[in-house]
Parts: sequence; structure tokens; C-alpha cells
Amino acid sequence: MSTALLTDHYELTMVEAAMRAGTAFRPCVFELFPRRLPEGRRYGVVAGVGRMLDAVADFHFEPEEIDFLVGHQVVSEQMAQWLSGYQFTGSIHGYPEGELYFPGSPLVTVESSFAEACLLETLLLSIYNHDSAVASAASRMVLMAEGRSIIEMGSRRTHEEAAVAAARACWIAGFGPTSNLAAGMRYGVPTSGTAAHSFTLLNDSERDAFRAQLDTFGDQTTLLVDTYDIEQAVRTGVELTGGRLGAVRIDSGDLAIVARQVRDLLDDLGATETRIIVTSDLDEWQIAALRGSPVDGFGVGTSVVTGSGAPTCSFVYKLVARATSDDPAAPMVPVAKKSSHKSTVGGRKFAVRRIGPDGVATAEVVGIDRPPAHQPGDQELIVPLITDGVTVGAEPLQAARDRHRARLEELPMSGRRISRGEQAIPTIMGRSGTDGPVTIIGEGL
Amino acid sequence: MSTALLTDHYELTMVEAAMRAGTAFRPCVFELFPRRLPEGRRYGVVAGVGRMLDAVADFHFEPEEIDFLVGHQVVSEQMAQWLSGYQFTGSIHGYPEGELYFPGSPLVTVESSFAEACLLETLLLSIYNHDSAVASAASRMVLMAEGRSIIEMGSRRTHEEAAVAAARACWIAGFGPTSNLAAGMRYGVPTSGTAAHSFTLLNDSERDAFRAQLDTFGDQTTLLVDTYDIEQAVRTGVELTGGRLGAVRIDSGDLAIVARQVRDLLDDLGATETRIIVTSDLDEWQIAALRGSPVDGFGVGTSVVTGSGAPTCSFVYKLVARATSDDPAAPMVPVAKKSSHKSTVGGRKFAVRRIGPDGVATAEVVGIDRPPAHQPGDQELIVPLITDGVTVGAEPLQAARDRHRARLEELPMSGRRISRGEQAIPTIMGRSGTDGPVTIIGEGL
Repeated sequence: MSTALLTDHYELTMVEAAMRAGTAFRPCVFELFPRRLPEGRRYGVVAGVGRMLDAVADFHFEPEEIDFLVGHQVVSEQMAQWLSGYQFTGSIHGYPEGELYFPGSPLVTVESSFAEACLLETLLLSIYNHDSAVASAASRMVLMAEGRSIIEMGSRRTHEEAAVAAARACWIAGFGPTSNLAAGMRYGVPTSGTAAHSFTLLNDSERDAFRAQLDTFGDQTTLLVDTYDIEQAVRTGVELTGGRLGAVRIDSGDLAIVARQVRDLLDDLGATETRIIVTSDLDEWQIAALRGSPVDGFGVGTSVVTGSGAPTCSFVYKLVARATSDDPAAPMVPVAKKSSHKSTVGGRKFAVRRIGPDGVATAEVVGIDRPPAHQPGDQELIVPLITDGVTVGAEPLQAARDRHRARLEELPMSGRRISRGEQAIPTIMGRSGTDGPVTIIGEGL
Repeated sequence: MSTALLTDHYELTMVEAAMRAGTAFRPCVFELFPRRLPEGRRYGVVAGVGRMLDAVADFHFEPEEIDFLVGHQVVSEQMAQWLSGYQFTGSIHGYPEGELYFPGSPLVTVESSFAEACLLETLLLSIYNHDSAVASAASRMVLMAEGRSIIEMGSRRTHEEAAVAAARACWIAGFGPTSNLAAGMRYGVPTSGTAAHSFTLLNDSERDAFRAQLDTFGDQTTLLVDTYDIEQAVRTGVELTGGRLGAVRIDSGDLAIVARQVRDLLDDLGATETRIIVTSDLDEWQIAALRGSPVDGFGVGTSVVTGSGAPTCSFVYKLVARATSDDPAAPMVPVAKKSSHKSTVGGRKFAVRRIGPDGVATAEVVGIDRPPAHQPGDQELIVPLITDGVTVGAEPLQAARDRHRARLEELPMSGRRISRGEQAIPTIMGRSGTDGPVTIIGEGL
């Protein structure tokens, strides 16, 4: 399926005007980056890289799409001809998936002609803004769960395709299984699920419902115990399994109180191995509040798929450098919007993360036009993703998940707090030589 | 493309267990409804109906999907056999697209076997929760814009497929064109767009950029004037068009002040017909604040595609009635979860909106198990959407847009306010005879 129309109209009009003016094939550098973190967040998580690589590979204009664009006067016949042969032949570098980010981190650098790179703006932003918003929220929940498993079950609260991407992003951030079957098939994310209240209500009694579920899936299944009376349901589940019930799920009430009551009851009944799973509008704050409760696992829905208050990142895609002509030998010049508060730092960026001798990150160092001077322990943050049109940065999803886990270990304690605060490490932006200013974002925290 | 795996794992396990227990083919009634409105909202807008009809028609299991489900032990071979022949043969009634809703409005009623209806839970919720969240936010922006056009340009801030659905939902709610080309091709939503800052920066001067754009699209195009210096850019645009410039776009700064300065400058230069379009993190509050400003149109992105603080509706999908056996003649019984605060009202629902003699809505009347007693002026709210598996409720998108415009006219003044408050009209739920209780939600406002 083509991704070419998941694009804003103005990208095509810009290319059309640039073609007419003879500037469309000037070599350009576009950068995708965050101006800031969501209010109070201490770090962000990069997600969407693998999906972006697939989407760029699928970015071509089908004949019926060309017909639509010409028929609706979006583009001229001449432009249509160029579009029909479009494929991205440039290069993309960027942060790998699961990596952390901070304000100003150069997450994606696209080098190509203006015409080729301009058309990717909306698609890249859509993927990164969505997937990273979900992964950033999910990562904090994982920290708060302190090793207990979190099931992702938010598909129903977001667009049906966003749901699949959200399940993938949560897995990268360290969640357990997802409820979403398409995420299982497309991306290999483990899936899980047992029953809703409707299943209990379908049966003539709760006992009938539990027996049907146990007969089908065995004692290790999870019984939903809050359809009628929780105590009675727990007793029934334990009785039907001779005390070997895998888990119970509680989806309502004051979870801290109910979980304690259910734990005591299970223990009294001898079901000491039966786990307690809680669900019901949980977010990172609720998970943190349940740290002292006898809860073995969480199910999280709405809050994670909507980014827990930050449903989109503030990533932008800006032209930061361009050649002075379309001659490949023409010099590149940094460019930036100048008016008002939404300024951009011109020039191709490079980035390393500075790691202290104790293994803890101390700064995000962004070099403009040339790589920052390296120090011992510096981590390269930018890897090749597409080289001359060929995807080189694809990796198994597990690699992103492993990377994220490792990066969380390097976060300073201030970055692991749930409370609202400043970015965990400062971003230092500057030319690596002595020829330019150094800007520090989030200094002195 | 099949939609069958845009589904939660537990729907399949429930059906599997129900098949084993012999309850899978009991006739059932499921209801999709909102428990509440987002905090402070006075009404909601139904969107996603047309997309739901397409998604249900495409709900079938492809051979490779069956292989995945069996291979990953999600379902048994016997269940797989049934899934491979799945198509929805039941009936769906519901509110038509563009209609208003209030807490308790029975937005969708699905009547079918448990097995058939259960599988649609996640897909229906995903579509309605997303599309209605966007339409509900968009509708308030339309009210605040007081007839001025709003361009939807939020694709980059949401998942790439959610973006297409969002553009569609905004059009239903009364927005003007979208930036999203796929929404143009798939749904016929008008698209528009001109240029970003990158286009100005690509050229050797702003004058070159404007000339290229004007040469390509004519004087009626919109020039983006805030890349360097707004005053100079406006002067250049007016000069290059001999005062016939179509519009200028301002994307930064204090829009109320800048719009006034630009209007004065345009008028001084004789460009009295040149319109002013503003963009830059606008939401309904910002639009309302610009009522007194010389602004001719708005571009809205992030806030509308993320539901302006409410990125999902709180719609749920609950079993409300079922037969006592799978005999088609078996009686139906209302069912409802009993524990805790998340109770459901059992029974098949019917709904009308009560309209006063002045044409203003006064109540949402929901009948349980039988239609409410009709009064003069009552509007039927529920229409057939799918009858015995056949789609009967499809309509052109324009019909939904027209319906929404008409419904806004019927909102009481309290519902048109931007300030946070209670639902605009109360929901009255009760049996139409004398045999049951009446519940009023949002009474006495």
C-alpha cells in the first residue's frame, strides 16, 4: 500500500513552485527534532523508526493517486510525471529506536534534493510524533511498575491503526504483552487476553462462566472477578481450581483497598500463588500509588495510547541547510527561520550523549555542522538509517527494546522521578570549533 | 484489507470458551455508549459511522490471519474453522453521523449472536472513540469561529492513518478544507495548502520565493509572511501582485496584535481585499479570543486532531441483553454488571431528542426495552445502519455535515458556550411504561 498521500497538500505545491523556479533539486538537509518535552517530563523516548523505514520504502505514487492529484488540480501534468517516478534516493540518519531524547536532539536528518525530502515531512512527523508520544508515556509507567508486568490494552481508546503502532511502541518501552492481535501478527509483539464482563453476563451464572473459561484455557487463566460480588467470585474461582487459579483481574473500585482484601482472601483460601492483575484507567501515577499494594500486574489502556496527557510530541521538520544551487559541488549554507519565538538552529547536526565515569548520562551534546569533540565514554547517538535510497537501519524490535532498557539504566536519578520537573540532562548545542556560540538548554538542574 | 485483527485477543478467547460451553450463539444485544462527556464539555458529536460500516464489511479473516491465530495458540483449530467463515449477519442501529450525543445516548446497538457481536467490540470502539473525539473538539472550534473558515492541518501531529480519519471528522463538524491528501482522495474532503517556511528558506531571497509561488499559483495564493520580517514580507507580497494578493498567513507571534498590524499595513498599501489567515497552536479558546481581530481564517492542527484535551471519548461496548438459550424463540433478558461505580443499565435502548416549540432541544430521552412515548417535535435519533448483515445506513459525507449544522442550530445557548459546564440538555432514561425507574443524568442545569 502506498503511503504517498499521507501527506499535506502544501508539500506538493511547494515542489511544484520550486520546479518552476529551478530550485527543486538543490541539495537540502531537513531535520526532525523536538523543541521541548511535554510539560514536566524529564526525558522522551524515540519510537517509530522501523515504521518510518517501511513507510519511506512504500512512498510512491500509484496511477490512481496521480489521477486524483491531477484531476483535483493539486499538481500539474509536468509535476505528475515527476511524481509517478518518485522514490526516495537520498540518505537518512537518526537516533535508533528506543533511544532517549531531549529538547534539541536531532532525531532524524534527511539529506536529499528539496523535492524528494520535502514530500516526506508529514509522513515522518506523523509516525514519530505518535509513536514517540506513546513510548514516552509507556516508559514512565514501566519505571513506576518496578519490574511488574504491564499489559497494553488501549486499542479501543484510539484510532484502530494507531492502536497497532501504540502496541508496538509500548513493547519497545518495556511493556509486557498487548491485547492487539494485529500488533502480534505484524510486529511479533506477544498478545494476551482472557475475558470481559460480557462473558460472565452471557452465561447463566458466574460459576458457569468461570467453568467454561477454565475448561477451555486451564487453571492458569485469569478470571475477571468484579462483575457481581468480588469476594464470591474469588471464592468460586479458587474452589473450581482447587486453589490453583492462575490470576484474578480486578477492573473497578479502589484498587489499593480491593487488592489487599483479595490478597488476604486468596491467602486464606490457600491460593497463595494466584496473582492479582488490576486494570481500570491506570496511569503512571496510579501505578506508582499501587507500589505498596499486593498487585502482580497492571493492565493499562487509555492513558498510554493517548500519551498520558501528551498525545503528540512537539517534533518539527525543518530545512536547516541547503546548497546555493543544484550543482552537486555547490556549497551548503545553514538556514533558519528568524522571526518570533519559533526559531530554528540552522546547520546539519551531530550528537553524542556524554556518560560519566559512573555510567550515568550527564549531557546531550549536539554539534552543528561538524561532530562534537569526543570525550571518553561518549555514546554516538546517530546511526545510518537509509543510505542513497537503500534501507540500512532496519533491526528486530527486540533490539529497540533492549536498547531502551539499557538507556533507562543510564538515566540520572532525577530522570527517573515521576514528579514533574526539568529535563534529566541538559542539551548542549554548539559548533565544535571555536567559531560559534554554545547554547545550553535545560542547564543547571 | 481485512479489519479482523484490529481486535483484542480476549474477544477470541471469550468466543472460544463460549463455544465450548454452548453459549456462543445466544442472541445478544450489545450497546456502545458514553458514560460521560469530557470534563466541562456540553455536548459531543457522533463521528465514525461511515467508517464503521466499511470496517464491518471488511471484517473477515484472511488465511494468513487464521494461520497466525492458530500458530500462536490464540484459537483452536475448531474455532479457526468458524472464524474463516465469519461475516457479520446481524443488525446494527445507531445515531447517524454528525448527530449530537450526551451521557447515556445509545450510539450503537448491535444485535446478533454473542460470537458475532463480541468480535466487533474493539474495532467499533476504536473508530467511534477516535472520530467522535476529533469531531467533538472541531465542532466547538466551528462555533467559536463564527462563520470564518477553519483549515484542518493537524496530520503531522497524529498517527498517519488517524490523520485521515481526523480530517474526515473535522469536515463533518463544519471545518473547511484539510491539508490531508488521502482524506481528499478517500472521502472527497476538499484539500488545500500553499507553502511552509522551508520553501522561503530554499530560495535565495523571500522575494524569489514569493515570485515562484505567485508565478505558479497566481495572485490568489496565500503567502507565508513570517519567515524573516513580517512587515517587509507583506510589502513584498503586495508589491509583486500589484495589491491583488489573495491572502497572507501568519504562523507566529501574538496573533491578535500582529493581525491588527498586518491589516493596517495591507489597508495602507491598498490591499484591502487581501485576507489574513492565522495558524500556530490554535484551539477553540484561541479562536474565541481572536473574535475581535481582523482574521479571515484559521488553520488548526494539534489541538483538533488530539481532541483538544480529550483525545478519546469514554465510549464503552457492553452486553445489555441476551437470550436465555440459543433457541431463536428464547426470551431476552436485560443484563448488567453490578459491582462498584462502573454500572451499566441493562436492556435494549431507544432514543429521541425532545425539541421545544421554539426549535431548541430540551432533553435526550432514552427508553429501555421499548421506545419512549412520543411527544410532538420529538426527533428519532436511531436509524438502521446494518440489517441482517446488509449495510443500509451509508450516506454521503455531506449529509453528515448538513445534519451536524442543523443540530447545532437546535442547541440551547448554554450548549454553545465555550466555558466549562454541564451537559447542554439532560438525559432522561426510563422505561416508557410505568414498570420501571426513571434516571435523569444532568438534571436541572
